[in-house]
Amino acid sequence: MDDLFGGMEGGGTKFICAISDGTFHLLDKIQFSTTTPDETLGHAITFFKKYPLNAIGLSVFGPVDLNDSSRKFGYITTTPKRGWSGIDIISPFKQEFNVPIAFTLDVNAAVLGEYVLSPINNRLKNLVYITIGTGIGAGIISNGTVLSGLSHPEVGHMRIPHDKQLDPFPGICPYHGNCLEGLASGPAIHSRWNILPSELPGDHPAWDLESDYLASALINIILTLSPQRIILGGGVMNQDKLFPLIRKKIKLLLNKYLLFPEIVKKMDEYITNPGLGTNSGVLGALVMAKHLLTKNE
Amino acid sequence: MDDLFGGMEGGGTKFICAISDGTFHLLDKIQFSTTTPDETLGHAITFFKKYPLNAIGLSVFGPVDLNDSSRKFGYITTTPKRGWSGIDIISPFKQEFNVPIAFTLDVNAAVLGEYVLSPINNRLKNLVYITIGTGIGAGIISNGTVLSGLSHPEVGHMRIPHDKQLDPFPGICPYHGNCLEGLASGPAIHSRWNILPSELPGDHPAWDLESDYLASALINIILTLSPQRIILGGGVMNQDKLFPLIRKKIKLLLNKYLLFPEIVKKMDEYITNPGLGTNSGVLGALVMAKHLLTKNE
Repeated sequence: MDDLFGGMEGGGTKFICAISDGTFHLLDKIQFSTTTPDETLGHAITFFKKYPLNAIGLSVFGPVDLNDSSRKFGYITTTPKRGWSGIDIISPFKQEFNVPIAFTLDVNAAVLGEYVLSPINNRLKNLVYITIGTGIGAGIISNGTVLSGLSHPEVGHMRIPHDKQLDPFPGICPYHGNCLEGLASGPAIHSRWNILPSELPGDHPAWDLESDYLASALINIILTLSPQRIILGGGVMNQDKLFPLIRKKIKLLLNKYLLFPEIVKKMDEYITNPGLGTNSGVLGALVMAKHLLTKNE
Repeated sequence: MDDLFGGMEGGGTKFICAISDGTFHLLDKIQFSTTTPDETLGHAITFFKKYPLNAIGLSVFGPVDLNDSSRKFGYITTTPKRGWSGIDIISPFKQEFNVPIAFTLDVNAAVLGEYVLSPINNRLKNLVYITIGTGIGAGIISNGTVLSGLSHPEVGHMRIPHDKQLDPFPGICPYHGNCLEGLASGPAIHSRWNILPSELPGDHPAWDLESDYLASALINIILTLSPQRIILGGGVMNQDKLFPLIRKKIKLLLNKYLLFPEIVKKMDEYITNPGLGTNSGVLGALVMAKHLLTKNE
């Protein structure tokens, strides 16, 4: 019988879990809200227990400890999300499943899923996946592997220009105030305008401001990593107006300094939505599960 | 007889050329000012011609075209440096030397030199070398190889917070005005204060402002790449006050968000000067020359 894999993408708003075979065909899938750690991880465990899994891939919002020689490997660390700071993600699964378990950050799984499985992205050895939702984070494929230095990227806390006359909102990041996440995450939009981002109409001035902040952050990422493509996901990006605004402002800010055809002629493909839709993260987690099993065999 | 290699580091202010054997022991070295392309490249060619070289490594300030399928491979592209935009760097050497010739950006050579040859840096698979001089640029080792996506990094043109009340200087970048390079390069300091950076005393307010800009840029680089170490070179960094100011401000800006020992406890080693002194770039160029010869044999 074929191997069976379980994959989890744990976001700050919702979790997605899925089961696949070795071809990454999804056999079952479940989605539920992120509540308390016990309840949320419990849902995932109950779902996985229905299947005779051979390996599991876990991915979760960060920051997480990815240092496998650390005592806190597999923990969520300094998250501002209430109730989730210092939570051990791997152990509850280890207690229930005697199979190899892979672990990473949610956006690392998402960029890996796109890199390995997306027909449009899987030849790009320098690829960035950014989520703009409850938090802002990026997973990076650099020279063909998931970038991991001291730890994972933390682009949400980047410093960008903030014109306080135009936008007196001080930002909501508990660590940095007006860093990118403090100014442009879903909760920042909610707090600034007192409306949920999903309920803000397309012609609201919120989107022009949001695209200013995202364009500044994206050109910093372009100028640092020189990626071949940037994929934008997360709840905030569900507003259709944002993509064209962001693309236009990136071109304006770069001001013909970078003349690569990908940027000058193919901006619609350069800054784009996920090739795998909402499944990038859970598919990336399944890819990790299969890789781990293959390595252990 | 041993193989002989020629290496060139071509900066915006000065060029360094050197000869080494396969152990990278420097047998001869020359340094001269960057004047016109003809004169400057001519000096390098005359120097190299004194030796029976087996391969040559060329590195030069950017932006450069590193796409080896491009008609402009080996050219300097959109540099604001007068007389050097659109200059073909490789061809003058190809006409004179019938040996393999490697080519890259100056800071790519510098980070490669540090990665391969510096006793303190050569185990770090995620390493950044930043030059702050005539321009600002970075070479990046990511997952153990020199980062190259669409092209090389261009961190000098990053957007950072600019408090125009504190510093009304508009910036000198011809493309972006107040990008990092526009605010913090050697020529920007010179233009703002009307004194050469090398003549500004250590207690001048210029250094406090300079460290603000560099600390903002460096935390963006830390948050994107999660490097294990950042090496700072270039003429502006000759001001001894800068290193302690930058280290202090990085800690203040990060505000205990990243708790890695490298940042919390070993900041003096984390933000540091080149392990190879002023030879990082020319040694990196020699490493490229040897690698190319080995590959071609």
